[in-house]
Amino acid sequence: MFEFSRSFLTVESSFVAKLISSLPPDIRLEVPAGDDAAVVRPPAMRRTVITVDMLMEGTDFLPFPATDPKAVGYKALAVNLSDLAAMGARPEVAVVAVALPIKHGRTIGDEMLEGMLPLAKQFNIAIAGGDTNSWDNLLVVSVTAIGSVEPGKAWRRDGAVPGDVILVTGAFGGSILGRHLCFLPRCNEALAMTARWEIHAAIDSSDGLSLDLFRMMSASNTGARLECDRIPIHEDARIYAQQGSGQTPLEHAFGDGEDFELILALDPQVASDLINEFKHLFPETPLSVIGTVTATPGIVCVLPNGDMRQLEPRGYQHLFTSNGSLKTSCD
Amino acid sequence: MFEFSRSFLTVESSFVAKLISSLPPDIRLEVPAGDDAAVVRPPAMRRTVITVDMLMEGTDFLPFPATDPKAVGYKALAVNLSDLAAMGARPEVAVVAVALPIKHGRTIGDEMLEGMLPLAKQFNIAIAGGDTNSWDNLLVVSVTAIGSVEPGKAWRRDGAVPGDVILVTGAFGGSILGRHLCFLPRCNEALAMTARWEIHAAIDSSDGLSLDLFRMMSASNTGARLECDRIPIHEDARIYAQQGSGQTPLEHAFGDGEDFELILALDPQVASDLINEFKHLFPETPLSVIGTVTATPGIVCVLPNGDMRQLEPRGYQHLFTSNGSLKTSCD
Repeated sequence: MFEFSRSFLTVESSFVAKLISSLPPDIRLEVPAGDDAAVVRPPAMRRTVITVDMLMEGTDFLPFPATDPKAVGYKALAVNLSDLAAMGARPEVAVVAVALPIKHGRTIGDEMLEGMLPLAKQFNIAIAGGDTNSWDNLLVVSVTAIGSVEPGKAWRRDGAVPGDVILVTGAFGGSILGRHLCFLPRCNEALAMTARWEIHAAIDSSDGLSLDLFRMMSASNTGARLECDRIPIHEDARIYAQQGSGQTPLEHAFGDGEDFELILALDPQVASDLINEFKHLFPETPLSVIGTVTATPGIVCVLPNGDMRQLEPRGYQHLFTSNGSLKTSCD
Repeated sequence: MFEFSRSFLTVESSFVAKLISSLPPDIRLEVPAGDDAAVVRPPAMRRTVITVDMLMEGTDFLPFPATDPKAVGYKALAVNLSDLAAMGARPEVAVVAVALPIKHGRTIGDEMLEGMLPLAKQFNIAIAGGDTNSWDNLLVVSVTAIGSVEPGKAWRRDGAVPGDVILVTGAFGGSILGRHLCFLPRCNEALAMTARWEIHAAIDSSDGLSLDLFRMMSASNTGARLECDRIPIHEDARIYAQQGSGQTPLEHAFGDGEDFELILALDPQVASDLINEFKHLFPETPLSVIGTVTATPGIVCVLPNGDMRQLEPRGYQHLFTSNGSLKTSCD
């Protein structure tokens, strides 16, 4: 004899209902959320870009209450916006499915909204609907984000050509200290870039600079030659190493992941022009040329003394260990 | 000190990668899955319809191995197809996010694919991508389905007018005996209907005939007068009642939910025409006129002897109790 329940929060109080009622009406929605499905007016003459990311409590972030639910709400949307940025796509709409813990579920949901809503407004993404569930278990949240690009203009992984330079935004490593929850997706930078400059290939560094670069190079049938001393190492990577992580700051920069920075391949002259203009457009977004695309597969990193190191793609099944100094909120 | 891991299955072996590689290339995908996001060619001059549903092991179906993973894969897509049908929308693409249990995760994933793939093919929905995760916990699967409709033609809940008849597909009640896993979404019926006949309002019966009808009537600012003896009661409802569920078959038909049948409001003459033609188009899909839309709010059910019963919307927080005769696979 087995008993199970379909748990419905009343629609009026549900996470998704609150999420939607907190946002102003959006011209992109022909039929707003609340029906069996939402109906969206897609922008004319553009392609639809679709991505989904699921976050699980205890896997993608420390279990509550160690992590601030606000940061989880933020991250759940931000990781998807980062994927749209990595395609050069403009954010359009998102839907949110959530399995809330029965215990404190309403509070957790409300706090998640506090993290998600400002980000939705900031990047002008309409929340078109979702699915609110609850269960006696850990939180799971799955956001599907939809963007748009001009036909043929989406940034793919497989377009890098030998002679391209490899350009990255921001700095890498040590995101586990808190940045993995609080990063700003590079949507605006991506949109400014795609409007003016030809980008051959792009990816976001979700699983680690070395692994994601490896993926882009493999897809393009190319390799990369990096200058080790040009890798922008985040201050968090240095702190993490000093705390006795057992790795060097450079190793953290290559392997940690969840930096959610853009990795781009483009013509050297275009890159030079882009970097010059970006100083004025986005003075707070560092850009670094870290190396060049080669015809030879594999990734090598050249040390200042001229020694070369073959880089192994890292990031798979990587175990993060905190030593108590984790930042687990975005405040 | 807390340790957590981001578990990646290698892309080659992941649930989503297998799902995608099992389907033929699809003209609707400009950039197929495998990049940061998929790029879809939306059909010209049509609106985008978006819906998401998350299923959780132990909440939406009995925990493995009591339920066949194949049935779960089937249901995860089918519930979304049913939502598209309820909007009169044509299925286009879907993305699938999954948190697989570490224990037997690969087997469960493979079996889920066996359930999901034939359904995707049958209803010509392209799988554009997804997100494969694993954790030491119960299965969670979230499918986001995207369809298309002509501008202004989506079936809403709020368009019923007094004098309309209420038409339903199929039969209701007792879905817990197995049909809730194995139902055929009414996509083809919906597409045939929307191409030829004007439907004023529609909803699918996911949470129970009475509750979902109540939702449609409330959204339309109308009520309904039903003929109790015209409610198509499923054989499963009778079996369930005979097994000592403590409810009558009619109560099961009104309250059980997960029938995933269409509930429609339309002009009586149009309904008559539709029913006549449907006998030839879909000889295996029963259609029943169960009552009429009224200006007075609320739902009343008229018994054969003329007595009237006020119907309470049911379905919220409904506890299902099985007595061991549950069908937990679709084979």
